[in-house]
Amino acid sequence: MNGNRFGRLFEVTTYGESHGPGMGVVVSGCPAGVALDERMIQDELDRRKPGQSMITTSRGEPDEVSIQSGLQDGYTTGTPIGMTIENKDAESGKYEPFVTAPRPSHGDYTYSAKFGTRNWGGGGRSSARETVNWVAAGAVAKAVLAQSDHDVRVKAHVNQIGEIEAPDVSFEDIREHSEDNEVRCADPETAERMRALIDDYQERGDSIGGSIYFEARGVPRGLGAPRFDSVPARLGQALFAIPATTSVEFGLGRDARSVAGKQRNEDWTVADGDEDHVVADEGDPIPAGNDHGGLQGGITTGEPIYGEASWHAPTSIPKTQATVDWETGEEKAVTVTGRHDPSLPPRAVPVVEAMLYCTILDFMLLGGRINPDRLDGHPGQYDTDYHPSSPRNE
Amino acid sequence: MNGNRFGRLFEVTTYGESHGPGMGVVVSGCPAGVALDERMIQDELDRRKPGQSMITTSRGEPDEVSIQSGLQDGYTTGTPIGMTIENKDAESGKYEPFVTAPRPSHGDYTYSAKFGTRNWGGGGRSSARETVNWVAAGAVAKAVLAQSDHDVRVKAHVNQIGEIEAPDVSFEDIREHSEDNEVRCADPETAERMRALIDDYQERGDSIGGSIYFEARGVPRGLGAPRFDSVPARLGQALFAIPATTSVEFGLGRDARSVAGKQRNEDWTVADGDEDHVVADEGDPIPAGNDHGGLQGGITTGEPIYGEASWHAPTSIPKTQATVDWETGEEKAVTVTGRHDPSLPPRAVPVVEAMLYCTILDFMLLGGRINPDRLDGHPGQYDTDYHPSSPRNE
Amino acid sequence: MNGNRFGRLFEVTTYGESHGPGMGVVVSGCPAGVALDERMIQDELDRRKPGQSMITTSRGEPDEVSIQSGLQDGYTTGTPIGMTIENKDAESGKYEPFVTAPRPSHGDYTYSAKFGTRNWGGGGRSSARETVNWVAAGAVAKAVLAQSDHDVRVKAHVNQIGEIEAPDVSFEDIREHSEDNEVRCADPETAERMRALIDDYQERGDSIGGSIYFEARGVPRGLGAPRFDSVPARLGQALFAIPATTSVEFGLGRDARSVAGKQRNEDWTVADGDEDHVVADEGDPIPAGNDHGGLQGGITTGEPIYGEASWHAPTSIPKTQATVDWETGEEKAVTVTGRHDPSLPPRAVPVVEAMLYCTILDFMLLGGRINPDRLDGHPGQYDTDYHPSSPRNE
Amino acid sequence: MNGNRFGRLFEVTTYGESHGPGMGVVVSGCPAGVALDERMIQDELDRRKPGQSMITTSRGEPDEVSIQSGLQDGYTTGTPIGMTIENKDAESGKYEPFVTAPRPSHGDYTYSAKFGTRNWGGGGRSSARETVNWVAAGAVAKAVLAQSDHDVRVKAHVNQIGEIEAPDVSFEDIREHSEDNEVRCADPETAERMRALIDDYQERGDSIGGSIYFEARGVPRGLGAPRFDSVPARLGQALFAIPATTSVEFGLGRDARSVAGKQRNEDWTVADGDEDHVVADEGDPIPAGNDHGGLQGGITTGEPIYGEASWHAPTSIPKTQATVDWETGEEKAVTVTGRHDPSLPPRAVPVVEAMLYCTILDFMLLGGRINPDRLDGHPGQYDTDYHPSSPRNE
Repeated sequence: MNGNRFGRLFEVTTYGESHGPGMGVVVSGCPAGVALDERMIQDELDRRKPGQSMITTSRGEPDEVSIQSGLQDGYTTGTPIGMTIENKDAESGKYEPFVTAPRPSHGDYTYSAKFGTRNWGGGGRSSARETVNWVAAGAVAKAVLAQSDHDVRVKAHVNQIGEIEAPDVSFEDIREHSEDNEVRCADPETAERMRALIDDYQERGDSIGGSIYFEARGVPRGLGAPRFDSVPARLGQALFAIPATTSVEFGLGRDARSVAGKQRNEDWTVADGDEDHVVADEGDPIPAGNDHGGLQGGITTGEPIYGEASWHAPTSIPKTQATVDWETGEEKAVTVTGRHDPSLPPRAVPVVEAMLYCTILDFMLLGGRINPDRLDGHPGQYDTDYHPSSPRNE
Repeated sequence: MNGNRFGRLFEVTTYGESHGPGMGVVVSGCPAGVALDERMIQDELDRRKPGQSMITTSRGEPDEVSIQSGLQDGYTTGTPIGMTIENKDAESGKYEPFVTAPRPSHGDYTYSAKFGTRNWGGGGRSSARETVNWVAAGAVAKAVLAQSDHDVRVKAHVNQIGEIEAPDVSFEDIREHSEDNEVRCADPETAERMRALIDDYQERGDSIGGSIYFEARGVPRGLGAPRFDSVPARLGQALFAIPATTSVEFGLGRDARSVAGKQRNEDWTVADGDEDHVVADEGDPIPAGNDHGGLQGGITTGEPIYGEASWHAPTSIPKTQATVDWETGEEKAVTVTGRHDPSLPPRAVPVVEAMLYCTILDFMLLGGRINPDRLDGHPGQYDTDYHPSSPRNE
Repeated sequence: MNGNRFGRLFEVTTYGESHGPGMGVVVSGCPAGVALDERMIQDELDRRKPGQSMITTSRGEPDEVSIQSGLQDGYTTGTPIGMTIENKDAESGKYEPFVTAPRPSHGDYTYSAKFGTRNWGGGGRSSARETVNWVAAGAVAKAVLAQSDHDVRVKAHVNQIGEIEAPDVSFEDIREHSEDNEVRCADPETAERMRALIDDYQERGDSIGGSIYFEARGVPRGLGAPRFDSVPARLGQALFAIPATTSVEFGLGRDARSVAGKQRNEDWTVADGDEDHVVADEGDPIPAGNDHGGLQGGITTGEPIYGEASWHAPTSIPKTQATVDWETGEEKAVTVTGRHDPSLPPRAVPVVEAMLYCTILDFMLLGGRINPDRLDGHPGQYDTDYHPSSPRNE
Repeated sequence: MNGNRFGRLFEVTTYGESHGPGMGVVVSGCPAGVALDERMIQDELDRRKPGQSMITTSRGEPDEVSIQSGLQDGYTTGTPIGMTIENKDAESGKYEPFVTAPRPSHGDYTYSAKFGTRNWGGGGRSSARETVNWVAAGAVAKAVLAQSDHDVRVKAHVNQIGEIEAPDVSFEDIREHSEDNEVRCADPETAERMRALIDDYQERGDSIGGSIYFEARGVPRGLGAPRFDSVPARLGQALFAIPATTSVEFGLGRDARSVAGKQRNEDWTVADGDEDHVVADEGDPIPAGNDHGGLQGGITTGEPIYGEASWHAPTSIPKTQATVDWETGEEKAVTVTGRHDPSLPPRAVPVVEAMLYCTILDFMLLGGRINPDRLDGHPGQYDTDYHPSSPRNE
């Protein structure tokens, strides 16, 4: 209700501001019996953390996660997983000039208009720093999926920075190569050009927009609720929740505007069972193509779900800009110094993946593909003889 | 949870399938004291209903709404408004060939994969026909907003069909002229060309995609929840829930990819109080532009909220296509006869507006801008002396 | 959020007032593949309907249900089940004196204090008539449970009216005999005395309170969420939602106050597998007694869940009482004529059972004991080859 | 959904187990502008904490709260308040014998039946220790109410232990004297007898049940949603969520069974404006009595809301009891050593109050009596010129 919670059965609740004492996330609804440790969370946080390269903010945050609850002997117990992450390098002081004189295109004005006050250090609650919580939750979802009977694979990479677009890259290449460079573009030659462009903007005290291509394979057929909770509706919410997202597309996306029905409609064909891109057995109907992006009627077909999302240029730039103090009504100049990313997509890649993991797992729990109480066949040793798939003894 | 409900305080719950006995919608959380009658609902339904022009399906549905509850003497009572709409021209028979042999690119296969069965008449629950419920709910939200102290205005029009794009049209022109033609494009010359294109596709037994531009003005500043329930997140869900939506953009949208921070960032200036496009008093800070689409940090600035969404071409076309019967495993040819729209955006315009009305009202209730129990100063005559804004007697 | 919806995966949304055009209920989240028809709903409604005996209101409502959606060929499809029930014998006129002069101990004043207006015919939205919707939803839940692999049995009977208490009656006797008489007390001799007492109050123009004993058997072990959504918490909400409920107790209930730990604690023993009151296989641990009412730590043990709830005397009595007109400030006399029940429990029995069915099914869906998409092995003929319990082909 | 979250607009999410690293609670939906500090939370935690007297467990937990987010300069910001509390005196070792051999009448068996594993140190997630989070959240709600324009007062005291019942005590006496003794009974003479009884049970290695009377005054008229979210329904859930609650009653409660309508119905009279127990102005209708417990039609009348709840005897007693190891199927003897309360109500008093504060505030936010974004007239200094009650500048 208040914007601090995501998901229905796999519920993620977060707290924390950019420059407060600490961040935290409660993951409620994680099935029992999943092997989980801090290293698995940390690996994902490290992909998002500041200071990882020259094109990310130099703020010195180790982003060390501590798991406070929800585990027994290395396995989840089904009870909420509380995770905390301290803020260690917060310097609020330099944000004092903006307390009542909002920075251009930030959330300063709107948060104050809503609440009459705000955490004014950094972006406060509106800061992209807060997505550290999302990535921690996504790491839990990823672990659940990896240990389930399903073979769900999610990966994203940066496919455009400024005018520089990546060519089409295979899903396998995205999985293998998107982390090879700091830009997180799976095509090495494009990555180099993107990197040069970002450097150029950074040197000029400017910033630049960009976009991410994402894909999920192995998602079972028949997932997604009709109507308001369709897969695109829920993923749309998930992706637009990421700070600075300006567009989301699935399948043909925006290009669908000028495509005819005859061209887009895909015949049904018979699976030979060797396809590894689609969830189907030999003899099952499968679509002849995937312009539909894995979604028909808002529900999954078993084909890959894919799409793109865009991010506008970071609004924190060291240019002198004009603002107005709302206490005095006076116009004044502001300069946003500090440590900021020159382009968002490289660090948004793990955030996009986290939101996909969380949303897909939520749909799998809601669709009964993973038992919400506990994984079948998990190795926890304190079992009773109840087995979800065998109601015999109930 | 199950996809049949939308909104948090202004809760919309729907039922009904394309070829079942009837459709219905429950609007729960509408404040008391709002003048409402069936005519106000019907006017909106008539904009969406089939058979309204040569470029819409000829299915003969009057879409007459009946209000079953929630009113006293012409005013809402705060209790749920139940509305029913009969299906009068359902001919399921012709869908029998598709029961186990899915039509290409429809929801036939995915609904069956999920539920193991489905309402196979028409698109069943996946049909765009079901949006009649959404438009009815949107009409209620529109009435609440119109009678509140706020001057919220919402309008959309078709801005692209196939390759034909409309030029920029002012919000006033969209409000005045988008309903002048059957395509619902506010630029008359473009509308004519779009109409010719649609006719052309229809004659060839084909269909074509397109898009809608939408805008909301007068939305108070400071609306929207942080993070997961930001305005773009919730509107993103709302718009991607509409059948066949393939992209959603806010503000600069997809183009933000190649825009620099210096260019996009908007200085704060001082309102002179005469601006009618922005919610601000004299002396308030207002942004110098609106590339941000009325949203900063996911919360409203008082500037117009605007964006675009795309729809793929209708999948029901009278072409012979290939499918597979999943009972027999046999390939077979299907031809989808029947009455279908050749392009979706003209009839999606009222649906988009309905989702905007519902979402904006929900945010206004959640933000305390409209009392969730009752409108201030409403003319209902059975009042006690409690006034929400004056807690004196409590 | 607004009080018109119940349940999480099995979501029940209702509309309608005592004297409006009609009542309705949307059941969303019912799994596909359940045989359902109007007769199954109607049988339950007939147990609750007015005019069924001399000790119920004589209002002439047939309470005929019409299913508007969610079925295909007699089986549920997983999409929402819309049900409507017309009001046929509404005479609002006689409630006009109470528009601004509230009847004692009704909801007249409080609804107006909340909403500034209200449906003033009968009790409007606050009327117990509205529970017809609940019973319809409960009939759906009962059908799902009956067709599942589980053997859940729910039954309630009236165990006290005024000072007359029923002796302990076995669950089998409650199931077989509670519907044998108009009071719905399974002990025939007590039923007769209760009946005489109710007649006596009715003749004197008065009314009387009473209570219901309820029990559920066959509920699987391990159901219920920790903490805020424990079984007693959710059942407590469900039962206190019924109009005029004044107490709810589980297990030892109120008497637990004076029971020592040594006395109440129940040793664990070994099931021999022949027990039919408990869900357990041979060799499983089972408690030596059931003072805990089937619930430990808020989660089910497999033992019967049981308890009691009380209802105050109906507030509509033909006595002349004093009220105040809030428009004029004047004191005046009111006499509530009309057709009213002299005691609530006899007609509340099916309502209690409905709330138990809905709540238990909701927990079974949430706990993965029944697949939320569809019943395993259901006889619907439009299946794809996906089976929830066998992820092989996904 | 998963039981770890309570409230709708005032959302409380908790994590933590009895013997894990730490406990935590996220309060989301607290309005901005409320003065809050750790001392205000700590004062309430100290009333619940272990070791506070001879009749509470001697576990050495200081229960020190640390606020991690949601404040700026001592005022709430409207963003979530994250609070953490370390577990400092956890000794899991002695619970090892119970890992697969459940203690009688605890949640050991049921948690394992649900999840297939559990945190087996102490009661794990089922432990009453977890209510430390609830009390922290309640302290926030109490602060909001205290700083609002409303004069809501909540207080509870122990009114029965074993067979010892307290006489009726005035609300003022409960407020002033319930904290005077370790039993938390406002009648000093009864408190002494209760204390002696508890000592007696403790010495004998036994435990005893009891009950709490609670009352809330100053709650505005017209709060509560119709039907499923009525005030008794939501409070019923809140109170039955507290571990070991066995009964909840409002107003006449269980005694309503034998009370006639003529006797219970309360005439409406005219307020003279001097009543301090009821929310009413001079000339308003008020009920002549309060057998209805401040609730009619499930909505508040302005009269005090009151009732009682019972707790069974603590299940941890140092008696040798029988259990069964579900791994081996063997019967064995268990003795629960450790540090445990001999009776629950004395420490449950602050928990009951916390749940009342949270629930009442939630209803006030939902009913628009307190703006969900921010308190009017709060002293935060970073305001824009928007005022919730005056939409003039929007």
